[in-house]
Amino acid sequence: MPYVNIKVTREGGPDGTGPSAEQKAQLISGVTDLLQKVLGKSPATTFVVINEVPLEDWGVGGLPVQEYRRQAR
Amino acid sequence: MPYVNIKVTREGGPDGTGPSAEQKAQLISGVTDLLQKVLGKSPATTFVVINEVPLEDWGVGGLPVQEYRRQAR
Amino acid sequence: MPYVNIKVTREGGPDGTGPSAEQKAQLISGVTDLLQKVLGKSPATTFVVINEVPLEDWGVGGLPVQEYRRQAR
Amino acid sequence: MPYVNIKVTREGGPDGTGPSAEQKAQLISGVTDLLQKVLGKSPATTFVVINEVPLEDWGVGGLPVQEYRRQAR
Amino acid sequence: MPYVNIKVTREGGPDGTGPSAEQKAQLISGVTDLLQKVLGKSPATTFVVINEVPLEDWGVGGLPVQEYRRQAR
Amino acid sequence: MPYVNIKVTREGGPDGTGPSAEQKAQLISGVTDLLQKVLGKSPATTFVVINEVPLEDWGVGGLPVQEYRRQAR
Repeated sequence: MPYVNIKVTREGGPDGTGPSAEQKAQLISGVTDLLQKVLGKSPATTFVVINEVPLEDWGVGGLPVQEYRRQAR
Repeated sequence: MPYVNIKVTREGGPDGTGPSAEQKAQLISGVTDLLQKVLGKSPATTFVVINEVPLEDWGVGGLPVQEYRRQAR
Repeated sequence: MPYVNIKVTREGGPDGTGPSAEQKAQLISGVTDLLQKVLGKSPATTFVVINEVPLEDWGVGGLPVQEYRRQAR
Repeated sequence: MPYVNIKVTREGGPDGTGPSAEQKAQLISGVTDLLQKVLGKSPATTFVVINEVPLEDWGVGGLPVQEYRRQAR
Repeated sequence: MPYVNIKVTREGGPDGTGPSAEQKAQLISGVTDLLQKVLGKSPATTFVVINEVPLEDWGVGGLPVQEYRRQAR
Repeated sequence: MPYVNIKVTREGGPDGTGPSAEQKAQLISGVTDLLQKVLGKSPATTFVVINEVPLEDWGVGGLPVQEYRRQAR
């Protein structure tokens, strides 16, 4: 009975778009299949929770991700 | 000094309603009491964090929960 | 289909003992009952994960918890 | 830059075995591929953390998982 | 390659204001520096995720935090 | 009343050593100070939980971290 939590940045605004409902469904389906294939886990008891994290709440390299990307260009 | 995280789906729309502030207060009170009763933990240092997860962000059976419920009917 | 994570310190040594398997079973049972009573959640799809955290890995008041307790006496 | 956390029960003893290092490597590889395929996320900034949870620390149906499985037979 | 998650209450309304983007940037910068100084971890592979938790979703002392603060006055 | 979770790899074996109790105390102290300085949070209600993650349980670049480091040399 696995529990999987996937955190991704919530993209959006002029530079992109966030994960769509269809993309989230693909993540849920894909990771559930993976756990069944690799560990024999039953899909019926595999929970997947996706969190979209606002860009200003995600840091890497000591910077909020938007600032980090600007500097990395 | 326990830390408890409770994740539930954020219900709503035509088919239901999300947990109310009153229901959340009952969860906080109930789980804090439980930790005091079972382990003798002080309520003053028991933290409870509740997360409401949008339906499209929660998967079970390899499907987003709304789709899963539709098929389970 | 709630997911609950309970983190408690792993007590032990001369000053106490950790939660026993019986106490963990009481936490699992109690929090599952609570979610059924307050939100009508089905026990069959309620997951509870307990983490015992070593004392040196838990901080409060800016100190590891053992040091914090020593100073609080 | 996704962060993925996978929690599975630590199987073992007479009735089974836990995930092997090879199986964990397959989970890491598979979920990283999935995030690249579905959302275009770079593997270099995709973190995966696996937690093996002792059976007595995982509850479902209001019971520790071993007891739950015994009753489900 | 550390992963740090910081959860704080989302303040606001007549009694206060939430963390600003500038304050979040300071948290990201500060905790990344700390991990580099204490453990030699590379900022480039240090992820920080901040979650603002609504006041009604955070409990302490068996009460939602707003109620707890009212009684503590 | 912030809650901070810091996950780092558990180094060790011939190639290194894990974070010492002293280093963990520095992380707890440092992050608590940071939250007080930036957001005015009280140390008395700031919880810090550190998790050491075994190397085979942490993935980056689609590989367990030890393999990733070998290839990155």
